[in-house]
Amino acid sequence: MTATALLTDQYELTMISAALKAGVADRPCVFEVFARRLPDGRRYGVVAGTGRVLDALADFRFGGEEIAALRGIVDEPTLRWLADYRFTGEIDGYREGELYFPGSPILTVRGGFADAVILETVILSILNHDSAIASAAARMVSAAAGRPIIEMGGRRTHEQAAVASSRAAYIAGVTATSNLEAARTYGVPSAGTAAHAFTLLFSTHAGTDEKAAFAAQIDALGVGTTLLVDTYDITAGVANAIEVAGPDLGGVRIDSGDLGMLARQVRAQLDGLGAPNTKIVVSGDLDEYAIASLRAEPVDIYGVGTSLVSGSGAPTAGMVYKLVEVDGVPVAKRASHKESHGGAKRAVRAARDTGTIVDEIVVTGGAGVDVADLVDVGNLDVRDLQIPLVRGGRVVDDLPTLADARDLLARGLVSLPWEGLGLSHGDPAVPTRYVTRPEN
Amino acid sequence: MTATALLTDQYELTMISAALKAGVADRPCVFEVFARRLPDGRRYGVVAGTGRVLDALADFRFGGEEIAALRGIVDEPTLRWLADYRFTGEIDGYREGELYFPGSPILTVRGGFADAVILETVILSILNHDSAIASAAARMVSAAAGRPIIEMGGRRTHEQAAVASSRAAYIAGVTATSNLEAARTYGVPSAGTAAHAFTLLFSTHAGTDEKAAFAAQIDALGVGTTLLVDTYDITAGVANAIEVAGPDLGGVRIDSGDLGMLARQVRAQLDGLGAPNTKIVVSGDLDEYAIASLRAEPVDIYGVGTSLVSGSGAPTAGMVYKLVEVDGVPVAKRASHKESHGGAKRAVRAARDTGTIVDEIVVTGGAGVDVADLVDVGNLDVRDLQIPLVRGGRVVDDLPTLADARDLLARGLVSLPWEGLGLSHGDPAVPTRYVTRPEN
Repeated sequence: MTATALLTDQYELTMISAALKAGVADRPCVFEVFARRLPDGRRYGVVAGTGRVLDALADFRFGGEEIAALRGIVDEPTLRWLADYRFTGEIDGYREGELYFPGSPILTVRGGFADAVILETVILSILNHDSAIASAAARMVSAAAGRPIIEMGGRRTHEQAAVASSRAAYIAGVTATSNLEAARTYGVPSAGTAAHAFTLLFSTHAGTDEKAAFAAQIDALGVGTTLLVDTYDITAGVANAIEVAGPDLGGVRIDSGDLGMLARQVRAQLDGLGAPNTKIVVSGDLDEYAIASLRAEPVDIYGVGTSLVSGSGAPTAGMVYKLVEVDGVPVAKRASHKESHGGAKRAVRAARDTGTIVDEIVVTGGAGVDVADLVDVGNLDVRDLQIPLVRGGRVVDDLPTLADARDLLARGLVSLPWEGLGLSHGDPAVPTRYVTRPEN
Repeated sequence: MTATALLTDQYELTMISAALKAGVADRPCVFEVFARRLPDGRRYGVVAGTGRVLDALADFRFGGEEIAALRGIVDEPTLRWLADYRFTGEIDGYREGELYFPGSPILTVRGGFADAVILETVILSILNHDSAIASAAARMVSAAAGRPIIEMGGRRTHEQAAVASSRAAYIAGVTATSNLEAARTYGVPSAGTAAHAFTLLFSTHAGTDEKAAFAAQIDALGVGTTLLVDTYDITAGVANAIEVAGPDLGGVRIDSGDLGMLARQVRAQLDGLGAPNTKIVVSGDLDEYAIASLRAEPVDIYGVGTSLVSGSGAPTAGMVYKLVEVDGVPVAKRASHKESHGGAKRAVRAARDTGTIVDEIVVTGGAGVDVADLVDVGNLDVRDLQIPLVRGGRVVDDLPTLADARDLLARGLVSLPWEGLGLSHGDPAVPTRYVTRPEN
């Protein structure tokens, strides 16, 4: 077990110290995670990371080493409180793979003030990272229009963020990952064959020997493998590949150059060599726009790295963790123009009978109420977006799996209004309606 | 011990499988880490992460669980080889905190092909992440012109990337971090007082009570604490803060709004209330440009989050790990326009006697040679940039500390040509000269 308890900002513990001393540490509170806006020009977000939040919660304990590390930072009464800490409250949230929009209450944490405030950083870190990756990856999957994408960006991001990125990308519909830890930890299918280094390895004083490299790869991995053909000259590389492997070669990979033009050339060359079933894999600085631009080209598989693991320009989802209710009283910061809505919320999504989403409806004070009593949804279908995740401090049973999350998102993307899948900058595809339940 | 061995791309293991079968797995190889270019418009990069690379190397073992996870992905001879794996080669590299430029050989790994190729992903992940963060943070530290910066971005990035970001930011000269795990693991000074939630916590049906919140915080943390004054109305917040704390209040924090205008107003108000020593901390979407724009304002401390941990637009350093020499033969990919220089390299930096850097000189085949014999450096001072890091698979003793890295960078920034510290887009501040040693 790796303790996650210090993945925490110091101010959470100093607030607990002050709250304990003031006797308000146990006041019943509701905190909510939401994004005030989507990243610039994005039309939807994808929730990812909730499963990892629940894993981190299970390991969130202050053992002897953690307490020792905090001595001098917070006072002794607080250290004693921390040593006994375990979350005992309730958490509800959107499913992983669910679409979200500005203001969507993605996670709701109910508990005593100290119990809940201490989870702020670890919850936000995970959701902000994983949702940013899933949101970018979903755009790439849409752009690929059914062609498989292999995520190979681990080397471009923090070594553990790489593992989480593979998981988030898989939720978004990416087919496989190069990352072996993601394969082990989350069961994401893994893929990978060879780098340029392998071809270069067969160089001697006598010169290069691409054919020897290809032969060695086929000998070990079989003729179904993918040969990297752009180490020296691509046309010669393709000729060498088919000469060594025969027409049943699984694939060739091109990692540089004008990928569209090269894909056409290589496809014609492969067909001419009697290898019409040999697939073409392209990689090298692909993002959703580059993927879309290759839609008409004879590309079979995309390998995506940097842009995926860095959220394609939006490396964080911008979610915040806000106290919205204290002892039943709605609270909100008022000093700025930041959009804040006090009070615990419930969210439902209204859709036409065709499935197309019309509205994200966020209801304040709507627990236990039929939404139809609060808002006129006409003959739209409405469904609740939050599910119970933690009850009495324990993770509930039978939560959705990664495969469920993947399916949910695939269905969700189909249900967006038609402009929702546009790659260009635009407004959120679905408006958020705030509804406040009248006082009884 | 957390095994780091699966923080690896599958193709590294399939290449090893093929190399073992072909009998070339032990060919002596040299791999180099370098960046072909700096992120768009950046004038220098900062090396960070090398210490974490060496930590990861120590834990890079394939135990029973890792081998089990790989069964079915690679063949049995490869699994046996992996089970016995430990790196036995040599690593040299730039010090942490060293400046780098396009082509700088930041890390050089010497070993058998399989021994060395297997480290590609974990080395790149760490260096690409940590160097991206340190490079961005250094610009912020420059922009702050001596005022302290507190890193508080953990919630905006992956939970473990947050810890590494704090470390990298500290190398770059940031003063403190909010992240408690970074404080524990790396000894980075930590800081933090309270969030808006703490002020909101004192709300009741009777209304809000900012003064009660401030009093509680001071009671627990002392009058030297920093009170967050923008939950409701900033002017009232400052008045409440001084009323409750008295004129010896340590600081006030403003987290929203036009920070420059607010800092001036709040400074005047504090001075008028007889609290000229109460510091002003500003936070909220600050990046190096916003920090620079506040240089003339009465700001005492900056809190920086999102932009720091996301590399301020450049979340990855774009470093690659390339095979440059096999059995003494220089090798390089040739198919693209990518800048590649085969052959193991040595790097020296030439500077005037004032300390100002003139040239980054990258010498191919220059091991053991006096640089003055290869290039005319006039009366410039030259110093070698790589130091030994690993010998015979073991990390060498007495490597530079984090404090050393911090000092090195502080001196390095002073030694840049004057245009090097410009925040606007520009070219690398120092040109890279490639020199090839003539054949003997």
